[in-house]
Amino acid sequence: MNLPDIPSIADALLTARLQALLDGKTKPLGSLGRLERLALRIGLILGTDQPVLQAPQVLVCAADHGLAARGVSAFPSDVTWQMVHNFVTGGAAVSVLARQHGLGLTVVDCGVRYDFPPYPGLVVRKVAAGTQDASHGPAMTAQQCATAIANGREVVRALPGNALLLGEMGIGNTSAAALLLARLADVDVEECAGPGTGLDAAGVARKVVVLREALAANAGARAPLEALAALGGLEIATLVGAVLQAASERRVVVVDGFITSAAVLVASRLAPAVLERCVFAHRSHERGHARMLAELGAEPLLDLELRLGEGSGAALAWPLLVSACAILREMASFEGAGVSNRL
Amino acid sequence: MNLPDIPSIADALLTARLQALLDGKTKPLGSLGRLERLALRIGLILGTDQPVLQAPQVLVCAADHGLAARGVSAFPSDVTWQMVHNFVTGGAAVSVLARQHGLGLTVVDCGVRYDFPPYPGLVVRKVAAGTQDASHGPAMTAQQCATAIANGREVVRALPGNALLLGEMGIGNTSAAALLLARLADVDVEECAGPGTGLDAAGVARKVVVLREALAANAGARAPLEALAALGGLEIATLVGAVLQAASERRVVVVDGFITSAAVLVASRLAPAVLERCVFAHRSHERGHARMLAELGAEPLLDLELRLGEGSGAALAWPLLVSACAILREMASFEGAGVSNRL
Repeated sequence: MNLPDIPSIADALLTARLQALLDGKTKPLGSLGRLERLALRIGLILGTDQPVLQAPQVLVCAADHGLAARGVSAFPSDVTWQMVHNFVTGGAAVSVLARQHGLGLTVVDCGVRYDFPPYPGLVVRKVAAGTQDASHGPAMTAQQCATAIANGREVVRALPGNALLLGEMGIGNTSAAALLLARLADVDVEECAGPGTGLDAAGVARKVVVLREALAANAGARAPLEALAALGGLEIATLVGAVLQAASERRVVVVDGFITSAAVLVASRLAPAVLERCVFAHRSHERGHARMLAELGAEPLLDLELRLGEGSGAALAWPLLVSACAILREMASFEGAGVSNRL
Repeated sequence: MNLPDIPSIADALLTARLQALLDGKTKPLGSLGRLERLALRIGLILGTDQPVLQAPQVLVCAADHGLAARGVSAFPSDVTWQMVHNFVTGGAAVSVLARQHGLGLTVVDCGVRYDFPPYPGLVVRKVAAGTQDASHGPAMTAQQCATAIANGREVVRALPGNALLLGEMGIGNTSAAALLLARLADVDVEECAGPGTGLDAAGVARKVVVLREALAANAGARAPLEALAALGGLEIATLVGAVLQAASERRVVVVDGFITSAAVLVASRLAPAVLERCVFAHRSHERGHARMLAELGAEPLLDLELRLGEGSGAALAWPLLVSACAILREMASFEGAGVSNRL
């Protein structure tokens, strides 16, 4: 498969310049805490000490999951296409938040079991009408997975701006994310599986049983791409392509919750320097996400017990990125403002 | 003293209506986590299930502290007036963040040891040129304290909008806040005192010694107003008045860090229902703030290791309040959007 080259963006000189700029601002040293580290990261990604975020884009990738037939979700599969409709007609949480913050919103049908009429903002890159049931064998063929990754790259290439906010929709996809975490990070799947959209304890226990079957049915799929095809979903594979492409273009990648983090996990196993381009928006309330974030060495911005997905957490965190850039560009220095520095 | 009446705004009927609205939105039950509780709170404060935040105002109260002469801060007292100048000329963090979010910014000279020329956005309500050194006796007279509270009420009365974001500036004021927490919540002052703008461990130890002297020198000042006069600051007293006035008008009060929380602590001891009107923006990195928040039963929105004050944390959290209202007003319901609810 043709994957983009993603070199490290580590830059000691620029890091030092950014840190000196932050340290010279009229505030006690380090007193803006993690906002300063965020400013530093965005500066490094965009390769400048005066970063400006331009035309930010939320990309919501949607697909259905064969595993959903095994009762791993509290909601029926039809909700996937119904929510896609809700996204593009403006009624979903991510639609509301994208409007609030002036974010572009593109929804990709990566493999929804429904034929949509044309909608502005809906891009159809349907590889299949959902994945196969992973508890009986691979969710996707290697070819389907490769096509989905290529689709994600192509979609991002066509988007403007220098920041990409990741979102997803797919009934059953906390199962796929849990499977990828379990396989790629070698964690017991019970520690990766949570209530998703709202299973009770008995439902989660049944979900874990199904997930163990899926891991057993795909025992040989251990490399990142093989695991993605066997255990993932078409929206996750498309997101992997989107992340790789965005990272190769040095866009700021804003990661949402458990499912988009799974896509980043796969992408980072293919190209570790992807993580240098990522900002993790929040720690989801979904079981497994904290473990996933630790695996990725991530320091999420928000911790609001969110577990909705769609890119809603990424959109909620977005103003913090804008603030971080504004601090760098617009705050006065001790010298410029005639403010005395510490005793 | 003439204090406003602040009745409880508990409203079982409106609470039920808000909760039903949130539960009917197209998302798994409760999946927007603390954003939903925030929406509920703002709806209750504004007394509507369709809350709209209007003309939000940041109020930065500034004053100097007699205690600063005892070396309790890493910065010289002159930084208070220099930063006031920085606020009104647009170079401070809170200036930058207020611009980003379209927040009004009013700075009040409550007792800065400097005579400012007139500035747009600067209101002079100087009660004295700083407080007295609390390690030798009361920081303020009862009359000075009452005047500062009345000033805070008057300033808020003149501000438009239905939301007030609290900010402050005053070299030495983490000491005053620590003293108020220690006295009003009966906590050892060592647990309340931190590095402030950047003391090292030895500096914090010296600060604690001075704070113990101040508590001993004002041992009889135990009631809220007496403690405020003896141990507080002119900016904190002005903020107490501002909080009481805003609460009496049912404005949403957005609390910033350690010092503004101390003002809310005092106000809530005078009128407990003040807390129903408060949204706590963040958990500061300053030692004592976590304990203060626990005392107030507060659930802060952000936890970004901020310790700048000025209202910067309140401004950073502001978009989350706007999002919470937008979710209530703009998200589709399961019924309206034709989305299937859970199985």
